[in-house]
Amino acid sequence: MLAPMSNQRFVVIMAGGKGERFWPQSRLARPKQLLPIVGDSPMITQTVERLPKLVPYENILVLTNREQRAAVVEACPMLPPENIVAEPIGRDTAAAVGLAALLVGRRDPNATLAMLPADHVIHNTEAFCEVLSAAFAAAEGAERLLTVGIHPTEPATGFGYIQKGDVATRAEGREVYAVKRFVEKPDLETAKSYLASGDYLWNAGMFVWSVPAIRHAIRKYVPELDAGLVAIENDLAAGGELDATLEKHFPGLKKISIDYAVMEKADNVFTMTATFDWDDVGAWPAIVKHMACDEAGNAIRGAGTVKDGKNNLIVSTDDHLVAVLGTEDLIVVHTPDATLVCPKSRAQQIKALVTDLGKDERWKKLL
Amino acid sequence: MLAPMSNQRFVVIMAGGKGERFWPQSRLARPKQLLPIVGDSPMITQTVERLPKLVPYENILVLTNREQRAAVVEACPMLPPENIVAEPIGRDTAAAVGLAALLVGRRDPNATLAMLPADHVIHNTEAFCEVLSAAFAAAEGAERLLTVGIHPTEPATGFGYIQKGDVATRAEGREVYAVKRFVEKPDLETAKSYLASGDYLWNAGMFVWSVPAIRHAIRKYVPELDAGLVAIENDLAAGGELDATLEKHFPGLKKISIDYAVMEKADNVFTMTATFDWDDVGAWPAIVKHMACDEAGNAIRGAGTVKDGKNNLIVSTDDHLVAVLGTEDLIVVHTPDATLVCPKSRAQQIKALVTDLGKDERWKKLL
Repeated sequence: MLAPMSNQRFVVIMAGGKGERFWPQSRLARPKQLLPIVGDSPMITQTVERLPKLVPYENILVLTNREQRAAVVEACPMLPPENIVAEPIGRDTAAAVGLAALLVGRRDPNATLAMLPADHVIHNTEAFCEVLSAAFAAAEGAERLLTVGIHPTEPATGFGYIQKGDVATRAEGREVYAVKRFVEKPDLETAKSYLASGDYLWNAGMFVWSVPAIRHAIRKYVPELDAGLVAIENDLAAGGELDATLEKHFPGLKKISIDYAVMEKADNVFTMTATFDWDDVGAWPAIVKHMACDEAGNAIRGAGTVKDGKNNLIVSTDDHLVAVLGTEDLIVVHTPDATLVCPKSRAQQIKALVTDLGKDERWKKLL
Repeated sequence: MLAPMSNQRFVVIMAGGKGERFWPQSRLARPKQLLPIVGDSPMITQTVERLPKLVPYENILVLTNREQRAAVVEACPMLPPENIVAEPIGRDTAAAVGLAALLVGRRDPNATLAMLPADHVIHNTEAFCEVLSAAFAAAEGAERLLTVGIHPTEPATGFGYIQKGDVATRAEGREVYAVKRFVEKPDLETAKSYLASGDYLWNAGMFVWSVPAIRHAIRKYVPELDAGLVAIENDLAAGGELDATLEKHFPGLKKISIDYAVMEKADNVFTMTATFDWDDVGAWPAIVKHMACDEAGNAIRGAGTVKDGKNNLIVSTDDHLVAVLGTEDLIVVHTPDATLVCPKSRAQQIKALVTDLGKDERWKKLL
């Protein structure tokens, strides 16, 4: 048997989101990452198709959940099906990061891996690959925990922020900054001060690190999670089947976010800045900037028409007309079994609406 | 052959409306009168079922158009199918009134007939029948053109008005007023003055007259229409088939409303006042007062839910959820192939929206 080639690069795509904010198009079994929210193919398909210049398909893993696994396999036919791994239950991002490092480490204990969200929009694939490549280079064989931060364009309160410090080193000609601190989602005033300072980047949930570096950090800052990971590792090494092993150990893992568990505490966190376009498309109104609008600012996908209205967003199917008359800044989303109507300003509450629907026996089936 | 019994009573229901204001539920072939806009059966079915105490079913005729005939026959199974007459093309109400008088006159030349719209909501059937019965009595064997007026409850600009004068006579204990004048739809200021005066009634399009009286009035005020009616009468008397005869003569009839052609001019117009509830339910917002609302004023028919919104109207099917979040005074109507969204204040423009749709090859099929 050949020893694995050292220093392989991997990408692990995090695809566990519930996507409630895109209801009624998104459902528990078909969240945002599995829908063509922007573009013509599911977001996760676009994410995978951004990567071949960086890593071969066999080195791309997807972490999802059981409800979505079949749909992820369908959306990613280019990936070996065994690379699509389902958590039996969500245990937040620290457990997912640990599992990713464990799985990659079984293939190459000294590998470097990038962790990427499944559902972000990035059009400039070339610049994206260049930045990731540099981040891989900076992380390889080092104890660095690398993040890729996004230059903020508005005082967003929906993201965590990264305060960058001095340039610590360079990789492939790009600056690698020390990180002064990782901060959680701020209030608006704080976000404004972050934006004004110029020192803060959005934490887009993109991380690059070596297997040893992240395993070490988890061992140091979340030892109880590390213990669970070691138990999984031992079962797998003893020939345990992956799903059964995860079923046994995963639900007991500590539930905590990687930001809170590690990134806010570790002193070996570094950041590089994105030189590519980036949009997390967090809710319905965010898709408008990726669409063609009419002269009154109405954005229409599928069969739709607006009379005497402006800045409306219509999403429908091709065979069902949504006709909007005399409204402004309204979202109307039609699907075969449910329609949503709400002002753009209320889009953040769609999640709460979906929660309410889940409490009603009549509408549960629409989740 | 027996001579027809003299002085029979007939009701002719006018069912030619296009119902564009109830799009997308109403369509060219299925307008308001053929839909359960209020109540559980089509409006025309409810209209027919109000009448058996007044006249037998064989004395109830419906004037409709060819697109709607099959649906009218289906909605009125209690009527002899030959009583449902289709105009080959709409020629406004004077031609319809003339045709009605002609058809009733062929059954009984001295009959009295009431003309009623097909799509109004009247809950108090007993009072309705009492008023109609008195109007029949006042019209029988007289030269009177009777109308039934509605006491206005608001300064509506969507109806014509009837200014009543002194009591001319009584019928079955009810006042029969002389009519000072018939006026067309007023502007708001004028409507307010009408409301304040107490002399004005809404013209609800309900007329009662004898065949000789209305034929005489048409002959006097619209002789060219009378000539066309006589041509139809002669063809039918010569054994002509009704549809073929109408096809030949009806399109050439003068196109004018009965109000403008006769009622505003004749000096033998009288009115009686409705002592029953009445609602013409002219557009979507009008159905709300016939529905149960939640405590926030939301009215929902079919599968619908409102979160943080008030005074919305949702009309859907039972198997498609319309979920509305954070809106006020909005109308959302879902049908299998089209959805309408518009503020209640814009409901009068739905007709214009439908006109626009008719100009677009893609949406024509939705009319």
